Amino acid sequence: MARRQKHRQPVIDASVTLFRRRGYAATGLNDIVEASGAPKGSLYHYFPGGKASIAVAAVEEAGRRVCETLRELAGGKGSAGTLIRAHAELLARWMASSGFKDGCPITTVLLELAPANRAVAEAGRKAYADRLAILRDRLVADGHSEDRAQRLASLCTSALQGALIESRVQRSGKPLEIAAQELATMLDGIDIRGI
Amino acid sequence: MARRQKHRQPVIDASVTLFRRRGYAATGLNDIVEASGAPKGSLYHYFPGGKASIAVAAVEEAGRRVCETLRELAGGKGSAGTLIRAHAELLARWMASSGFKDGCPITTVLLELAPANRAVAEAGRKAYADRLAILRDRLVADGHSEDRAQRLASLCTSALQGALIESRVQRSGKPLEIAAQELATMLDGIDIRGI
Repeated sequence: MARRQKHRQPVIDASVTLFRRRGYAATGLNDIVEASGAPKGSLYHYFPGGKASIAVAAVEEAGRRVCETLRELAGGKGSAGTLIRAHAELLARWMASSGFKDGCPITTVLLELAPANRAVAEAGRKAYADRLAILRDRLVADGHSEDRAQRLASLCTSALQGALIESRVQRSGKPLEIAAQELATMLDGIDIRGI
Repeated sequence: MARRQKHRQPVIDASVTLFRRRGYAATGLNDIVEASGAPKGSLYHYFPGGKASIAVAAVEEAGRRVCETLRELAGGKGSAGTLIRAHAELLARWMASSGFKDGCPITTVLLELAPANRAVAEAGRKAYADRLAILRDRLVADGHSEDRAQRLASLCTSALQGALIESRVQRSGKPLEIAAQELATMLDGIDIRGI
């Protein structure tokens, strides 16, 4: 059991990478087996629900990673605007270093499968809410009311999500950089366009 | 020739619908044939490049439609903020009326195929730039400088793009509504949160 269990995480990690590069439908179970190094038979041991249940695990894993990154960045002392700019810079750097092949690890799978697949959509909603909460907390710490912070966090999360897609299509970090700078200007109430 | 040509547009229209509901990879040529009513042999007559060239035409068509909608909305006398709110309301209504099955007609295909497929990515870049230009022009008309208008239009386009995805996953128009209201507040410099 312990020996077989050891392949679970590599299967999820390989799926996150493959799904974000080419999407869910274009990724075959054989691709996942090959990329993860797991024995083919083990896939159904870990994921009796088949490929769709791997997608759920991959969305959960990707959501965890985004939150980890955000929490790490939020550990600093900066404002919400600083946090958003730091996150956008990181995303732009990761995208560039993958030759703009890596996009958001969740979006493509969600667009392909939600709303038809409710388990995947639910995992997506949770990942989105967790991510939003980190930014909301920072906005509250900056002095915004709970309600206002929730709304601003929603806008910022949407904007970085969209900018990540456009950066990938344009093969340039520019849309991410612009979105983050303009949001930071708005949030911090100071004009940082000149920087 | 005229008889065969008549199926071109139905093929493109059917592809736009299918791609935005379930993505590119999960849509087979047979699905397109069936949904469009075109004779199977005619697909390669119109699109000798096969399914990938249908994707290019679908992204172009979807881009044209978004711009048409935006131009129509921009025909009114309102500010850029009013335009964004009107667009977000329309998107939220369309999404809800499809049971949140219809998403952005371009995004899923772009995420699946760009950057590997350069023709699709190029069609996506053009659609994005055309859309952005309409908003930029309205922002210039509102009194913003060209450079500032370009940056704000980029942020707004990213934000609505991301909010559309989140609205689909959450099965609620709320993320679109919030993004548009917050952007409008920012752009118009008036506080409309109470509305």
